[in-house]
Amino acid sequence: MSEEKSRKRAGGRAGMKVRAGSAAIDQMPWRIPVNPDRPTEPLDADGVQAIHKGAMRILSEIGIEFLNPDAVEHLRRAGCIVNGTNVRMDEDFVMEMVGRAPSTFTMTPRNPAREVVMGGKNMLFVNVSSPPNAWDMERGKRSGDFETYKEFLKLTQYFNCIHVAGGYPVEPIDVHPSVRHLDCLYEKLVLTDKVVHAYSLGTERVEDVMEMVKIAGGLSEEEFQAKPRMFTNINSVSPLKHDWPMLDGAMRMAKRGQPVVITPFTLAGAMAPVTMSGAVALSIAEALAAVALLEYIAPGCPVAIGTFTSNVDMKSGAPAFGTPEYMRATQMTGQLVRFYGMPMRASGVCAANVPDGQSVWETANSLWSAVQSGTNMVYHAAGWLEGGLIASPEKFVMDCEILQMIQRYFEEATYATGPDDIAFDAIKEVGAGGHYFGVQHTQDRYQNAFYSPFVSDWRNYEAWQIDGAVWTHERAHRVYKQILAEFEPPPINGDHLEELTRFVARRKEEGGAPTDF
Amino acid sequence: MSEEKSRKRAGGRAGMKVRAGSAAIDQMPWRIPVNPDRPTEPLDADGVQAIHKGAMRILSEIGIEFLNPDAVEHLRRAGCIVNGTNVRMDEDFVMEMVGRAPSTFTMTPRNPAREVVMGGKNMLFVNVSSPPNAWDMERGKRSGDFETYKEFLKLTQYFNCIHVAGGYPVEPIDVHPSVRHLDCLYEKLVLTDKVVHAYSLGTERVEDVMEMVKIAGGLSEEEFQAKPRMFTNINSVSPLKHDWPMLDGAMRMAKRGQPVVITPFTLAGAMAPVTMSGAVALSIAEALAAVALLEYIAPGCPVAIGTFTSNVDMKSGAPAFGTPEYMRATQMTGQLVRFYGMPMRASGVCAANVPDGQSVWETANSLWSAVQSGTNMVYHAAGWLEGGLIASPEKFVMDCEILQMIQRYFEEATYATGPDDIAFDAIKEVGAGGHYFGVQHTQDRYQNAFYSPFVSDWRNYEAWQIDGAVWTHERAHRVYKQILAEFEPPPINGDHLEELTRFVARRKEEGGAPTDF
Repeated sequence: MSEEKSRKRAGGRAGMKVRAGSAAIDQMPWRIPVNPDRPTEPLDADGVQAIHKGAMRILSEIGIEFLNPDAVEHLRRAGCIVNGTNVRMDEDFVMEMVGRAPSTFTMTPRNPAREVVMGGKNMLFVNVSSPPNAWDMERGKRSGDFETYKEFLKLTQYFNCIHVAGGYPVEPIDVHPSVRHLDCLYEKLVLTDKVVHAYSLGTERVEDVMEMVKIAGGLSEEEFQAKPRMFTNINSVSPLKHDWPMLDGAMRMAKRGQPVVITPFTLAGAMAPVTMSGAVALSIAEALAAVALLEYIAPGCPVAIGTFTSNVDMKSGAPAFGTPEYMRATQMTGQLVRFYGMPMRASGVCAANVPDGQSVWETANSLWSAVQSGTNMVYHAAGWLEGGLIASPEKFVMDCEILQMIQRYFEEATYATGPDDIAFDAIKEVGAGGHYFGVQHTQDRYQNAFYSPFVSDWRNYEAWQIDGAVWTHERAHRVYKQILAEFEPPPINGDHLEELTRFVARRKEEGGAPTDF
Repeated sequence: MSEEKSRKRAGGRAGMKVRAGSAAIDQMPWRIPVNPDRPTEPLDADGVQAIHKGAMRILSEIGIEFLNPDAVEHLRRAGCIVNGTNVRMDEDFVMEMVGRAPSTFTMTPRNPAREVVMGGKNMLFVNVSSPPNAWDMERGKRSGDFETYKEFLKLTQYFNCIHVAGGYPVEPIDVHPSVRHLDCLYEKLVLTDKVVHAYSLGTERVEDVMEMVKIAGGLSEEEFQAKPRMFTNINSVSPLKHDWPMLDGAMRMAKRGQPVVITPFTLAGAMAPVTMSGAVALSIAEALAAVALLEYIAPGCPVAIGTFTSNVDMKSGAPAFGTPEYMRATQMTGQLVRFYGMPMRASGVCAANVPDGQSVWETANSLWSAVQSGTNMVYHAAGWLEGGLIASPEKFVMDCEILQMIQRYFEEATYATGPDDIAFDAIKEVGAGGHYFGVQHTQDRYQNAFYSPFVSDWRNYEAWQIDGAVWTHERAHRVYKQILAEFEPPPINGDHLEELTRFVARRKEEGGAPTDF
C-alpha cells in the first residue's frame, strides 16, 4: 500500500502540472507535435473522386449492416432506406452529416496541462492498445496480466512523446472481464494523467468509464459534457457491418459530447478487395456510415476517421503491416479524410514477432506514412509486435526513439533559412580547411542543435564493443527497466482518488459488467 | 580456375542478357524504379532563394580552394578571380555553367540491358562503397580483404534492386594499393555486368579504369566517348576545398564524356555550420564550384550533385546519420538541385555498428528521405554500418528488402483507382460479413497483388518459434550464404575477358599506380 500512500502525498491541486521525465533518459519535453509537411498524395483529384464515389455507391446501393436496433431506428427516421439491419443512405444525407463534424476538437484529461488538440496539423501518439500477450527479453511471450498492464501504463506516462493513454496496452487476462474495465481504468487514471479511452464493449463498461473520468477530473455532468474529456475507438466488422456494442458505445459517447474514432479494419484480400483503393473505399464507406449516424443523433459531435487498411500475405493469409501497400492506403485515406474535413487516425504497426530489424522497418514505414498522410492520431505508436498480438516494452522504448525523431523532424530549426541559419559569416570566419566546433555560431547553438537519442548508440564500434557490444533491443530493455525503477506516478487530487476508489469498490460489489456478449 | 572456366562457358555475345535471380530468394525482376511522388519540400521559394544566394555569396565573396593548378588555370581563363589556390566566381558565370549541365543522362555498362537513366523521376540504388572493414555474424569485425570484396560484388550483382556497382563495397587491404584498382575493377567487370565507378584517386587509376571499361565493353575510344559508360564520384574536402586527385579524375572523366557525381561531405558542427541550411548552402557552393569547372572545360558534360550533409553528436563529435536533421538536409538539397536542373545523389546511411534496430531506423530514415527529396542515385543503399567504416552482408540483404519495398511503393498498382481497383462489383458480390479470398476479383490478382518479402517473416509467433525463432539479421545471414552458394557470374565475351586479363597483367608488370600521394 506504500504506492497508494505516495500517490496521496503527491496529490492535491497544487500538483496538477506536467512533470519532466526522471533521470532514466534525457527525453524531449511534453509537446504536441505539429506536422509542417505537405502530405504525400498518390491520388489526383480524379482519384479522390473515384474513391469517394465508390464509397457513396457502397452506401447507397449495397448498404451497411447496423446490428443495433436503436441505430437502425435513428437512421430510418433520418430517411435512410432500411431493410432489416441493412441501411442504405444517399450521398446528400451522408455529406450533410459529414458537414456537421468538427474539423478539430480538444480532449482534456484530469490534468489540464495534458490537453490535446485533435485535428489540423497536430499529430498525437498513442501507446500500443489491446494485445492479449506481452513479450520481453527476460520473460519471452506470455499472456497479458495486470502487473504487466501497469508496467506499460508507466511507460505510457513516462514518455512525453506519448500524448494519449489509449486502449489497454496489454490485456490483463488475470482480471475477470466483468470488472477488468474498473481495475484497468482505475490504474490508468492514477498512473497516468493523459487523455484516456473507453472500450465500446458493452453499455456498463462505457458508462462506468465515463463516470470514472468525471470523478478523476472532479467534473460535474455539465462540465463533462461541455467538452471532450476522453474518447472511444470503434471498429466495424468488415466487410459492411457495425456491431451492437460498438454502436451502443459510440452513441452513448457522442450524445455526451465525447469523441468517437471510427476505424474499419479492412485487410485487402480478406475482409476487403485485394486492390488497395477498393479496400480504402470500403473502409471509408464503413466509417462514413457511423459518422452519419452519430452526427444525426448528436449534431456536431467530435468524430475522427481511422484507417486500418493493410494487406494479407496471399500465400498464408497472415496479415501484413507496414508494407508498401499499407503506406499507400494510409496516404490515400489521408486524402479522403481531408476531403471530408475531419481528423484522422492511423497506426504504428508491424508483423514482426520480436523487436528486430523487420519490426523497425515495418513500424517505421507505418509511422512515416502516418506523417505523410497528415494523420492526427497514431494509435499503437509504441510497443506493438506480432500484428498486435504482442505488446513489448523493448519495442515501446525503441518506438519512442522514432517518435522523438519525428517530433524533431517537425521542428522548424531543421529547415530554417534565416541569415543566422545560412551562416555566411561563420562560413567566412572558418574559411577553407577549418573546423566549426570552436566558432561562436556553433557555441551559441550546439546544445540543442541536433536530435539527441536515448537508445541509438553513435559511438564507434570499438567503444561500443568495449562497453559490452549491446544491441538496440538490449539497450531498450535496460531503458525500460530504469524507467520502471524510477517511475513516480503523476500527482492526483486526494479527494478524487478516494472517490474513484469507492466507485470501483461499489461497482465491483454490484458485479461489474455482464460478460455474456 | 574453375571459376574462370565457367565464366568463359557462359560468355559470348549471345549471353548478353539480364538474368533473373537464382533460387536463393524470390526477388523482384530488374527494373529502374520511377518515383511518382511529389517531393517533400520543407523550403518555400524564399527558402530556396536564401540557400541559393548563400551559396552564391560563398562562391563570389569567400571562394573555393582548388588544389589543382590545371583547374585554377581553367577558371582563371574563364574570368574567375584567382588568388593562389583560392578561386572566386560570380553568380552569372556559375549559373551559365549550371545551364550547360544535362538534366538527365544514360550510363551504359558492358551489358546494354543494364543501361540506366540518371535523372528525372528515376531512382538508382548503389551498393555500399569504401568501408575499410567488414562485419558479419560469423566473423565479427575485421579488415576488408579481397575475398570479402568479391563476396560483396556477388551480392551487388545478384540483387536486381542494386542498379549500379559503385565504389569498392569493402576496401581489400590485402591487395597493394598500387595494383588494387586493377584487381578490383577486373573482378567488378567480371562478377557484375552493371555500371561501374572509378575512384578519382590518381591519374593512372582513373585512366586504367576507363581503359578497362572500354575493354570489357569491346568499345573503341570513339564509342566510349559517345556516351556515358561509367562514372566517378568526387568529394570536396569541406569546408571550401577541392583536392588535386579528385579534380584531376573529374576533369579526365568529363573530357571524355563520363559522368562526375560531386558530393561534398558537410557534417554540420564539424566541417560545416551547425545550422542545417548553412551546411546545405556550403555543400551546394562546393558542388557548384566543381560543376562550373567541369562545364567550362567540357560543356554539356554529365554531372550530378550529391549530398552528404549530416550532423555530429555534439557531445562526442561522432558523426550521426539518418537523423531528422539529415532527412531535412537531404530534402532541402533536393529542392536546390531541382532548382539547378541536375540529377541528384544521396545515400543510405547509419551510425549503428551492427544490423540491429538502430541500423534500420537510421537507414530507413535516410532511404525515405532520398525518396522524399527526389534523389536519382542512392549510394550506400545496401550494406553500410558504423558510419561507413563497416560493410556487412547481413545489412546488405536487409537493406535490399527495404529497397524492394520502395520499388513496390512506387508501383501504380498500389494506388490505382480505375473501376476494377475500386472493385464495387466485388464488394457487392461479397456483401456483409463475407470473405474476399474466394471471389474472382481476388483470384485474378492474388499472385501479384502485394509485395512479397524475402527477409521479413510474417508468420505468427508460434510458427516462427517452432521454426527456430530466427531474428531478422540471422535470416539475412542465411540468405547471404545461400546467394553466395548459388551465385553464377554474368556472361562475358571471351575475347573481352582475355584482353582484360592481359591488360591487368601488363599494368601490374609496369607497377600499377604510384602510391605516393
